[in-house]
Amino acid sequence: MDNRLCIYPGSFDPVTLGHLDIIERVSGLFSSVRVAVLDNLEKHPAFSVAERVEMLRKVCAHLENIQIDSFSGLLVDYMRKTGAGIVIRGLRAVTDFEAEFQMAQVNRQMAKTVETLFLMTSPDYSYISSNVVKQVAAFGGDVSMFVPACILPDIRKKFP
Amino acid sequence: MDNRLCIYPGSFDPVTLGHLDIIERVSGLFSSVRVAVLDNLEKHPAFSVAERVEMLRKVCAHLENIQIDSFSGLLVDYMRKTGAGIVIRGLRAVTDFEAEFQMAQVNRQMAKTVETLFLMTSPDYSYISSNVVKQVAAFGGDVSMFVPACILPDIRKKFP
Amino acid sequence: MDNRLCIYPGSFDPVTLGHLDIIERVSGLFSSVRVAVLDNLEKHPAFSVAERVEMLRKVCAHLENIQIDSFSGLLVDYMRKTGAGIVIRGLRAVTDFEAEFQMAQVNRQMAKTVETLFLMTSPDYSYISSNVVKQVAAFGGDVSMFVPACILPDIRKKFP
Amino acid sequence: MDNRLCIYPGSFDPVTLGHLDIIERVSGLFSSVRVAVLDNLEKHPAFSVAERVEMLRKVCAHLENIQIDSFSGLLVDYMRKTGAGIVIRGLRAVTDFEAEFQMAQVNRQMAKTVETLFLMTSPDYSYISSNVVKQVAAFGGDVSMFVPACILPDIRKKFP
Amino acid sequence: MDNRLCIYPGSFDPVTLGHLDIIERVSGLFSSVRVAVLDNLEKHPAFSVAERVEMLRKVCAHLENIQIDSFSGLLVDYMRKTGAGIVIRGLRAVTDFEAEFQMAQVNRQMAKTVETLFLMTSPDYSYISSNVVKQVAAFGGDVSMFVPACILPDIRKKFP
Amino acid sequence: MDNRLCIYPGSFDPVTLGHLDIIERVSGLFSSVRVAVLDNLEKHPAFSVAERVEMLRKVCAHLENIQIDSFSGLLVDYMRKTGAGIVIRGLRAVTDFEAEFQMAQVNRQMAKTVETLFLMTSPDYSYISSNVVKQVAAFGGDVSMFVPACILPDIRKKFP
Repeated sequence: MDNRLCIYPGSFDPVTLGHLDIIERVSGLFSSVRVAVLDNLEKHPAFSVAERVEMLRKVCAHLENIQIDSFSGLLVDYMRKTGAGIVIRGLRAVTDFEAEFQMAQVNRQMAKTVETLFLMTSPDYSYISSNVVKQVAAFGGDVSMFVPACILPDIRKKFP
Repeated sequence: MDNRLCIYPGSFDPVTLGHLDIIERVSGLFSSVRVAVLDNLEKHPAFSVAERVEMLRKVCAHLENIQIDSFSGLLVDYMRKTGAGIVIRGLRAVTDFEAEFQMAQVNRQMAKTVETLFLMTSPDYSYISSNVVKQVAAFGGDVSMFVPACILPDIRKKFP
Repeated sequence: MDNRLCIYPGSFDPVTLGHLDIIERVSGLFSSVRVAVLDNLEKHPAFSVAERVEMLRKVCAHLENIQIDSFSGLLVDYMRKTGAGIVIRGLRAVTDFEAEFQMAQVNRQMAKTVETLFLMTSPDYSYISSNVVKQVAAFGGDVSMFVPACILPDIRKKFP
Repeated sequence: MDNRLCIYPGSFDPVTLGHLDIIERVSGLFSSVRVAVLDNLEKHPAFSVAERVEMLRKVCAHLENIQIDSFSGLLVDYMRKTGAGIVIRGLRAVTDFEAEFQMAQVNRQMAKTVETLFLMTSPDYSYISSNVVKQVAAFGGDVSMFVPACILPDIRKKFP
Repeated sequence: MDNRLCIYPGSFDPVTLGHLDIIERVSGLFSSVRVAVLDNLEKHPAFSVAERVEMLRKVCAHLENIQIDSFSGLLVDYMRKTGAGIVIRGLRAVTDFEAEFQMAQVNRQMAKTVETLFLMTSPDYSYISSNVVKQVAAFGGDVSMFVPACILPDIRKKFP
Repeated sequence: MDNRLCIYPGSFDPVTLGHLDIIERVSGLFSSVRVAVLDNLEKHPAFSVAERVEMLRKVCAHLENIQIDSFSGLLVDYMRKTGAGIVIRGLRAVTDFEAEFQMAQVNRQMAKTVETLFLMTSPDYSYISSNVVKQVAAFGGDVSMFVPACILPDIRKKFP
């Protein structure tokens, strides 16, 4: 198993400046990183998997060692299939911490070779979440300080 | 913008003794306070906006400088429209803290002149929430230690 | 009221190794313990009350002083009906702590004689929850390290 | 080992209304409870062990099944010596939770038969601590709402 | 008692950009604010009370409605003496939250008319504390991104 | 700057099974890791820097890509001197989280190229700390379940 391949999994519904901050920092640390959109219908995403992948492609166009992918099912199965050994997760807050702690332990229990590494979100983005973006956009508010500029047209199209 | 006008926004579905504690304390601190019922259909409230406004009017009848209002959409838009500069929020617990921290930062980012002030809920009411009231009432339990006496008939009518 | 009778209430949808750890430890501390399945349709359980009771019976077959029961409505009403005086709850994490704190205070407020005692979940099981079991099982993952072996057939039958 | 004997260990420097709340509630749950003053010089207590035991004796005079004792060294060694099987601890807050979680796990690891049961402090006393009492008393403030009335003379004598 | 006079108490050892952020925001909300340096020898401050007051005077020179003062003893006694009714505190994090919750409840218990209002520290300054400043300065590190520029000479003089 | 060189800094007073768990996992992820003992006299360590380095050497003898070192002063200065780009830290609990969050932000502010990666401590070791080891050892308790077997003689020698 190649530990050099990292997976940064998430819903990215849509990608925010906080996600981009993590992606750019991880891009400088590892030779190859795959951002993987989770196809989870239970969460009733606002954007389709194809739309979320497309937004991430635009946002990460300047980063050579970042690939965009999607998956459904269990993360550990996706890790096994791709031969990846490291999961990357951002931590924003204490409630994040506990959910992430649980998920990391479950994944390690199910696949002993899978290791999760956490980065702390930069303070500037610590209050941003995809949910905030969708709530503000749904009422016609300005979300330009929450998401990368290049996906603003996608958000306006979804929340006209 | 008049910083003297404070907004205390919330669902108030229904108003509890914890809410009333905050309202009475804020009433003594600021010259004019508006309690604003959020009209948020996504939360599937048990009481209509009109019912919640009416209960608040009864509960706050003894407080001269408290007005009751309702709004839909973004809080910052409501603040701009009313010319209010201060948001009041009660803090009960750590999970409150993080959600409130996020909301306060988002609001400040969207409207630089909006400031959020927090009061700690009195220990006597720290375990009370509108959800607890509704769950207990739904099973015919006694909620007289959770809500102001004058709205007990409204609750019995809703949960017969 | 007999303080010797303890109630360990929960959804148990399904029972996990973490629940069993609490049951076995409580079994050694009190003369009579009743594990009580909460019949709460709002949570959309995966297993029926009858199925959850049956799984608990298998899992607790080796423990003489453990009875299995179910109830609907308010816990304090069930406590009054059975004459029990002690509620047992496991604590896994900080978010558990706050929800449990609220519930314990509400119950004490509604029935002064009801006391809640908490045990800390063993570290080995601190990351396990019924939700994790269901999510992993739904995607065909192996849950044998999360639940007692004797209910594995029940889980496979529910998530084929 | 007799699981009926419970130990409620602590510094009690001095005993507060929060401690008394726990003692009175435990007194109603178990047949025999021993309140054990920890003789820990590292903490630089304000009151000697003898003074703290004496204050506890006055405060618990109305509770027949409560004994007062003191110990030094490890709690698990004291448990073994007295044949006690249950430790009682009060939980006030999240930071309490984590320190208590650690201590409970360490004690269980060192003595498998020792079980720790937690009670949530009543909201009325959740903000009281021995440190608050000492800080307020040191500046001549009124501590009568923090400690049992019968030990007020002891505190005034220590902080004249 | 004049609720318009607010006290912002603290050690300010030394004042940081986080403190200044709170002071500037409060200055825009209330007609008169007094920043009060706590003279607490137990904390072994690096700067004397006179030095801390002097640094605050320089830092707040542009704010007309901000006075600088110092006090020893209990905050509630200082509030009574000055006739102030509102305490201002900044909240940075969850551990802050619990200590602040306790202090606010104790102060309210001791002086019913004293109310504490909290502001959330801006994310940009959420990781800054006086202790960080002193630790970095003690090893000759650059603290210019942690404190107002006008007190940099004071810090270099204290940690040469 | 070589991002491949990782620093795992700490007091290691003494090294525990929790530390070793992090070291072994990091050893499998990065080509070169340096465990760096912080020489901080303010913390009044029980073991000298030389003793702590020696214990770490014994404990890590089986790990080829792990070097042991020590440093005093600021971590960012040590990072610059050694040309390391990644700091490794273990997270055990919520209070860890906040202190670590602050430290990571301060370090990033002082050296933009320094990145901190966090691993969650395994549940089996989540309750172990160097302080627990020293407290138990000081009273003659058994610490063999808290530290690697090869340093037990060093601990017995220090706490006879």
